[in-house]
Amino acid sequence: MEKKQKRDSEKTRAHILDVAFLEIYTHSFQAVSIDRIVSKTQVTKGAFFHHFPTKNDLGYTLADEYLRDMMQDRWIKPLRRFKDPLQGVLHCFKTNIVDMPDEFLGFGCPLNNLCQEMATVDPKFRDILASVLTMWIEETKRHLDRGKEAGYLKPETDTLALAEYIVTMQEGAFGISKTLRDRKVLQGLYESLKVYFELIKVK
Amino acid sequence: MEKKQKRDSEKTRAHILDVAFLEIYTHSFQAVSIDRIVSKTQVTKGAFFHHFPTKNDLGYTLADEYLRDMMQDRWIKPLRRFKDPLQGVLHCFKTNIVDMPDEFLGFGCPLNNLCQEMATVDPKFRDILASVLTMWIEETKRHLDRGKEAGYLKPETDTLALAEYIVTMQEGAFGISKTLRDRKVLQGLYESLKVYFELIKVK
Repeated sequence: MEKKQKRDSEKTRAHILDVAFLEIYTHSFQAVSIDRIVSKTQVTKGAFFHHFPTKNDLGYTLADEYLRDMMQDRWIKPLRRFKDPLQGVLHCFKTNIVDMPDEFLGFGCPLNNLCQEMATVDPKFRDILASVLTMWIEETKRHLDRGKEAGYLKPETDTLALAEYIVTMQEGAFGISKTLRDRKVLQGLYESLKVYFELIKVK
Repeated sequence: MEKKQKRDSEKTRAHILDVAFLEIYTHSFQAVSIDRIVSKTQVTKGAFFHHFPTKNDLGYTLADEYLRDMMQDRWIKPLRRFKDPLQGVLHCFKTNIVDMPDEFLGFGCPLNNLCQEMATVDPKFRDILASVLTMWIEETKRHLDRGKEAGYLKPETDTLALAEYIVTMQEGAFGISKTLRDRKVLQGLYESLKVYFELIKVK
């Protein structure tokens, strides 16, 4: 393939994923049709099927690439800026959850939504979602380990258990928010998490 | 209505709710048809429609009565047996989450599932689910208040924030379990919650 052709093809694929993400995030995976997604893109149905032969292929790619990158960008990469990873986790919790835009308060976390919707329905979907969730936990752990080595966390801290606890709390907060839509509750969860971290920190 | 007739009618209604609960819990609300539920009961379609004119009526009643009672039975009533409510919360977390039967490990919490599935789809459903979730938080708070008065919790404890944190953690654990299906993770969350409670307790 020519270089330009290849670049255009990659652009089309990325454009489809952008559109599909927002449609699925706001309407759920099962409720959204390929026709609906195609109608919101600038591409033909033929081009769509060239990239994603089935709706499931689209869903798998969305989870495996798009959501994996999003979790990295929103929850992992910002931790690099913090010498103390617990400060970094609190920063991410505030930015991504407590301060989320009003219009998304009832929509929850796109990864958690797909997990809740598809994990029991489709084993392949579940495997991909589990691998993204595991990556999120492992990468959080890696930063906690770095913090432990640098003396910010108590030496006896079980960083894997702590990373699992943090990710569970984050996904739980998104889940509760979908139903209660109450920012005060999210602020309270943030304060409680802060109290918890005080316990783990080396004074 | 005759007494016996009334009793039979109540029995039929309860039987339909029992069957509907299990079908919806294992297949989601939107995926289950009325025909499917009726075929698994001992009742006629006419009797079904007498009690629940629409599928939404069934869903609302399931959340408002059946799940409300279930949350009371599983998460609130057991707390009465514990002078220290934090011990009670840990007991419930262990019984209802860490030790849940293998076959349900991937199914999550029935209330959380309905919240995740229906809160963005149907405002009336959301209102009912929010009221059940709020009841769960308020009742947990009531037991924490009792424990605080009895001197088990530090006097400065914000019991509402703590109740919200506990319920979020429980729902988060169910959510994570649906995708990871790993009892070790649940055991780790239990240990982390225990560590947290050590901080709040009066020594």
